[in-house]
Amino acid sequence: MKPCVIRDILRPEADLARALAGFGVATVHEASGQLGLMRPDIRPVVPGKRICGPAVTALCHPGDNLMLHAAIDVANPGDVIVVGVKFRNTDGMIGELIATQCQARGIVAVILDAGARDSAELREMGFPVWSRAISAAGTSKATPGWVNVPIQCGDAIVRPGDLIVADDDGVVVVAAEDAEEVVRACEARVAKEDANRKRFQQGEVSLDVSNLRPLLERLGVQTYATAGEAGQLADGVR
Amino acid sequence: MKPCVIRDILRPEADLARALAGFGVATVHEASGQLGLMRPDIRPVVPGKRICGPAVTALCHPGDNLMLHAAIDVANPGDVIVVGVKFRNTDGMIGELIATQCQARGIVAVILDAGARDSAELREMGFPVWSRAISAAGTSKATPGWVNVPIQCGDAIVRPGDLIVADDDGVVVVAAEDAEEVVRACEARVAKEDANRKRFQQGEVSLDVSNLRPLLERLGVQTYATAGEAGQLADGVR
Amino acid sequence: MKPCVIRDILRPEADLARALAGFGVATVHEASGQLGLMRPDIRPVVPGKRICGPAVTALCHPGDNLMLHAAIDVANPGDVIVVGVKFRNTDGMIGELIATQCQARGIVAVILDAGARDSAELREMGFPVWSRAISAAGTSKATPGWVNVPIQCGDAIVRPGDLIVADDDGVVVVAAEDAEEVVRACEARVAKEDANRKRFQQGEVSLDVSNLRPLLERLGVQTYATAGEAGQLADGVR
Amino acid sequence: MKPCVIRDILRPEADLARALAGFGVATVHEASGQLGLMRPDIRPVVPGKRICGPAVTALCHPGDNLMLHAAIDVANPGDVIVVGVKFRNTDGMIGELIATQCQARGIVAVILDAGARDSAELREMGFPVWSRAISAAGTSKATPGWVNVPIQCGDAIVRPGDLIVADDDGVVVVAAEDAEEVVRACEARVAKEDANRKRFQQGEVSLDVSNLRPLLERLGVQTYATAGEAGQLADGVR
Amino acid sequence: MKPCVIRDILRPEADLARALAGFGVATVHEASGQLGLMRPDIRPVVPGKRICGPAVTALCHPGDNLMLHAAIDVANPGDVIVVGVKFRNTDGMIGELIATQCQARGIVAVILDAGARDSAELREMGFPVWSRAISAAGTSKATPGWVNVPIQCGDAIVRPGDLIVADDDGVVVVAAEDAEEVVRACEARVAKEDANRKRFQQGEVSLDVSNLRPLLERLGVQTYATAGEAGQLADGVR
Amino acid sequence: MKPCVIRDILRPEADLARALAGFGVATVHEASGQLGLMRPDIRPVVPGKRICGPAVTALCHPGDNLMLHAAIDVANPGDVIVVGVKFRNTDGMIGELIATQCQARGIVAVILDAGARDSAELREMGFPVWSRAISAAGTSKATPGWVNVPIQCGDAIVRPGDLIVADDDGVVVVAAEDAEEVVRACEARVAKEDANRKRFQQGEVSLDVSNLRPLLERLGVQTYATAGEAGQLADGVR
Repeated sequence: MKPCVIRDILRPEADLARALAGFGVATVHEASGQLGLMRPDIRPVVPGKRICGPAVTALCHPGDNLMLHAAIDVANPGDVIVVGVKFRNTDGMIGELIATQCQARGIVAVILDAGARDSAELREMGFPVWSRAISAAGTSKATPGWVNVPIQCGDAIVRPGDLIVADDDGVVVVAAEDAEEVVRACEARVAKEDANRKRFQQGEVSLDVSNLRPLLERLGVQTYATAGEAGQLADGVR
Repeated sequence: MKPCVIRDILRPEADLARALAGFGVATVHEASGQLGLMRPDIRPVVPGKRICGPAVTALCHPGDNLMLHAAIDVANPGDVIVVGVKFRNTDGMIGELIATQCQARGIVAVILDAGARDSAELREMGFPVWSRAISAAGTSKATPGWVNVPIQCGDAIVRPGDLIVADDDGVVVVAAEDAEEVVRACEARVAKEDANRKRFQQGEVSLDVSNLRPLLERLGVQTYATAGEAGQLADGVR
Repeated sequence: MKPCVIRDILRPEADLARALAGFGVATVHEASGQLGLMRPDIRPVVPGKRICGPAVTALCHPGDNLMLHAAIDVANPGDVIVVGVKFRNTDGMIGELIATQCQARGIVAVILDAGARDSAELREMGFPVWSRAISAAGTSKATPGWVNVPIQCGDAIVRPGDLIVADDDGVVVVAAEDAEEVVRACEARVAKEDANRKRFQQGEVSLDVSNLRPLLERLGVQTYATAGEAGQLADGVR
Repeated sequence: MKPCVIRDILRPEADLARALAGFGVATVHEASGQLGLMRPDIRPVVPGKRICGPAVTALCHPGDNLMLHAAIDVANPGDVIVVGVKFRNTDGMIGELIATQCQARGIVAVILDAGARDSAELREMGFPVWSRAISAAGTSKATPGWVNVPIQCGDAIVRPGDLIVADDDGVVVVAAEDAEEVVRACEARVAKEDANRKRFQQGEVSLDVSNLRPLLERLGVQTYATAGEAGQLADGVR
Repeated sequence: MKPCVIRDILRPEADLARALAGFGVATVHEASGQLGLMRPDIRPVVPGKRICGPAVTALCHPGDNLMLHAAIDVANPGDVIVVGVKFRNTDGMIGELIATQCQARGIVAVILDAGARDSAELREMGFPVWSRAISAAGTSKATPGWVNVPIQCGDAIVRPGDLIVADDDGVVVVAAEDAEEVVRACEARVAKEDANRKRFQQGEVSLDVSNLRPLLERLGVQTYATAGEAGQLADGVR
Repeated sequence: MKPCVIRDILRPEADLARALAGFGVATVHEASGQLGLMRPDIRPVVPGKRICGPAVTALCHPGDNLMLHAAIDVANPGDVIVVGVKFRNTDGMIGELIATQCQARGIVAVILDAGARDSAELREMGFPVWSRAISAAGTSKATPGWVNVPIQCGDAIVRPGDLIVADDDGVVVVAAEDAEEVVRACEARVAKEDANRKRFQQGEVSLDVSNLRPLLERLGVQTYATAGEAGQLADGVR
């Protein structure tokens, strides 16, 4: 319970982060058994980025970014800093100056269950940030907290060293110990999707490609030529 | 009440869709007597598009996009698929693979009272989608539903064959039987606006152009030179 | 309490608006003692703008933009029109035609605690608008209200003549009588940030640059090499 | 599209309303195939009521309750008035005076996709109202609309004569033509639940009563004595 | 701009507060020209109360209730303390201990654009509090602010000495200088409502009592016996 | 990552739960260093309860309560079941039948980051439930998940065996290993509050009792007799 900073964490092999960065958040989420997705209101401040790296976590008091500063100090190049707050807050915990530090030290991205400011400057720098809000509300540096303990961010549990994948669709967390399996599941999924995509491009539909017609029948979904034929259904459903 | 798919619907003449596509959502909404507007949280995933087409409707169980697949199967080139859910949900019901099918079959757009994923890919493909959220949350294909029955989407009632107009301002529904009248009302509105625009560009204001000064007077809105002259009003209003 | 329009207001010297426009909303907010920030849901409809000017205020009935029309009539070139509503509303109070008037008369921007429509057109014209929503919902011109009385917009109090600064981070209000002091505080802040930025770019971190290590110690934040060393903390914090 | 009032509607037999009133909203919703549920933010202003009756519908302009007045004029004893608005609004469309009229004429309840005021008085009178908000915001009586056309309320489509069931759990709509079938489905459901309840009261659990153990096994849900035995799972799930 | 406490404020005559307390928030809001209403999410923590008194205002930093403590020190018996925060927050700024102080000193109520805790104890004590949330989130006492300056609370501007009326419908602010006029307008309104109530209790409807039939006609609202007679309207409106 | 049920968990000594149940959520939250608080939108369905017990956790797919059924099977008398969902959902996962099972087996309460239905029946039974919503939306029993792994509920991390305290103020989680220390901190807090309460009841204020006057002075908060004396401050703060 005592506030603390933990300097060293176990990180998955860099290959795994590189591999996951090649897939999108949507693919990784499906391949993880639909686990680890952050809430959809955690949005990219700098659109068009796709990143992956091991999490360095910070748990901050709302409106106070002191522990984010402490997290930067212990993060390695390639890491993703993930910031949770003790209770709901949208104050702007990161701005251009903090992003400058992160960029200079090779930190890959910052994810916050809070706000970000200097949004135009962040876009100019191209430093990737995902946050709940864009807010110029200033923060203080006065309250103790934690670095590199398990936290909650955007409704997902993040442990130090877990892999964070983020792009324009949002953010997903992959447990360090599952990363290898998830990469393999992503590969399988993409291979299958590639095959399907070609058929779709030629005008086939998923009812045929994914063999859904028998399922519809099994579920009792009748097909009628017209509303009239379907009788009472024409305007009977809501 | 029994789940079903209705294959054939009545569609307004293609001219009407083309005509409405030439006006914006704001103009069409005003010309429709301010009816049919979807909630402002139905936003474009792919900005910069303006579309119009007859609705093919799907009513899905939350978190299950089976009936969207079934809707694609019965949609014609030029149609707009509109997806309602039985109760509130933001899961990502459409992604790049479904959009590929739609694009290949000439479907004009998909509107969802739910989420969309693969947002970067959708933008790249230029396939227009409007949704309540961008969310990578995966969906299943397991629950029966309806295609081409009246639904609710974004607080608007949509019947199969109604015309959907959508652009960066949002989405509006025009009842099939009203489409012709709405086109004419749009034309009248635009003509009047064109005349006004020129006067505004030359520095005239709407108080004069729209003759609002007598209205203000009739409503009892006094004009004072200064706050002091207005007396107690200076800081008395909230 | 009686509805009225006040034509003439006191405006701070134009130098002050120019100076504040050179700083961002985030800097001005901090330099103002963290006062005057509008809620983060007041967002730019036209991104990439930074403006500053004295406020001409309008207090409208929800869904009725009559007093915005009246405000345009009394605004000077360089002014920013700020629109409050009597109670919560997101209807689209401003569109392309109103923006055309404003642009022709040299009005710098419009800020609304309500919605905006014709968002694509506004972006094309490059006329800066900040609003709570993009909504095509039409408004009427039928209810009396006020121009140039103190109002509430986006949770901030705005008095006629106060300076409004707005950019991609949002909107902040600077009391007319504080403007000079805020400019000086911004300059001091920026000078200090420039010095720090250089050190950050060379790889230093804020724990050193801002001398936060002694603060962490004073607050009792312990540092451990590993989770194991920290004992029960490894997964004990939420 | 032209505003109008329709005086006479078809109502299901009174027996059906009486029967549905005997079941809760939760039971009716399940028995309807999970159709017709209003959003959970439509809440009872007067708790502890359970009502059912055929819908008389009103479609109002936001902030204007004129058509609610018109609906009272054509409603019969036993009816439920359901009010939709053209776009989102929480103004207080009903208060004690309107409730007095309704009560005197035997109207059973009012459901609004808007706000209600005089909440203490409504509770004292015991007149049941469900609404999106409690708000003292006043409304006008100035805009034309519709009575007894299909509307959207709380995300559900309501046609005149559909049966409305409401209690502390919210509001559900039953299509007139489905009412009989839904009553039978409710009866079957309640009978089954009564049998199960007794077993639960004696300490049995649903894994046995509903025979879910084989399902868990089929779905691949392993059971372990301890977290240690489950290995990596102990803190690996989020 | 410098933080400060102002000890003495002008208060309207006690008669006016007593008079307004006799009317409800809904009546006062209408009688004030629909001004001064707080957002509907400012709700009573202790239901069933109706209060009125002059405002002592506090402007706090989010998550810091220091200035509420300072406000108690300068409040008189009969006053209502109104707490604004610099930007959005729901932390629990008042609990049972602060309420005890207030009650002992004759303070009538506390209104917060923030959270309240110890809700059960507040109900037991019967001390009236209106707040945006019930939240146990603790606050600090570390940041300077203001007492008795104009603030924003729940979207309404509150100046020291303005009269606050609050009940189960919410909170409304009456400008000190308007109080007398508002009392008279309330009396007129109530007298008229009393007359109408009697007619409603005897089964008359507002279409007749308020003479709305000619208005409907003027607005072009047609009346039809049946949907069939109304033609295309039957299911044509959304 | 594989779905599983863990039957046996470590529970803190029953004394600790009993002790914490004696304090309120607000006190426990403060005594825990302001950790572990669930979001304020997790509200009591049955008001007036205060409970404490060790957590049995369930991680469910949205709209599917299968794992809640599995959790009941492994819970002991005195336990509190805490249900997380993989992503945001308000469907009614618990109703009267599930509550009956829980009550019969001595389960103390159920906390859900989802909805509850049969709210009137739950109140009648007096079975305590905290949830994000009251919703009749039905759920299925078809998707695998987890019992007794760490989960996220209401923004707080909950590990099996952690102590859950809940009352009308909301829900707070106390890490099992911290429970003893938190009890002691609560006792100290209550003792101090008891002393202060007496002084408050006799009319003293916290500025004196908590010695805040020197703090205000140190923070530069000036005191003025009147607004006039404070000069520019009178209406200069927002």
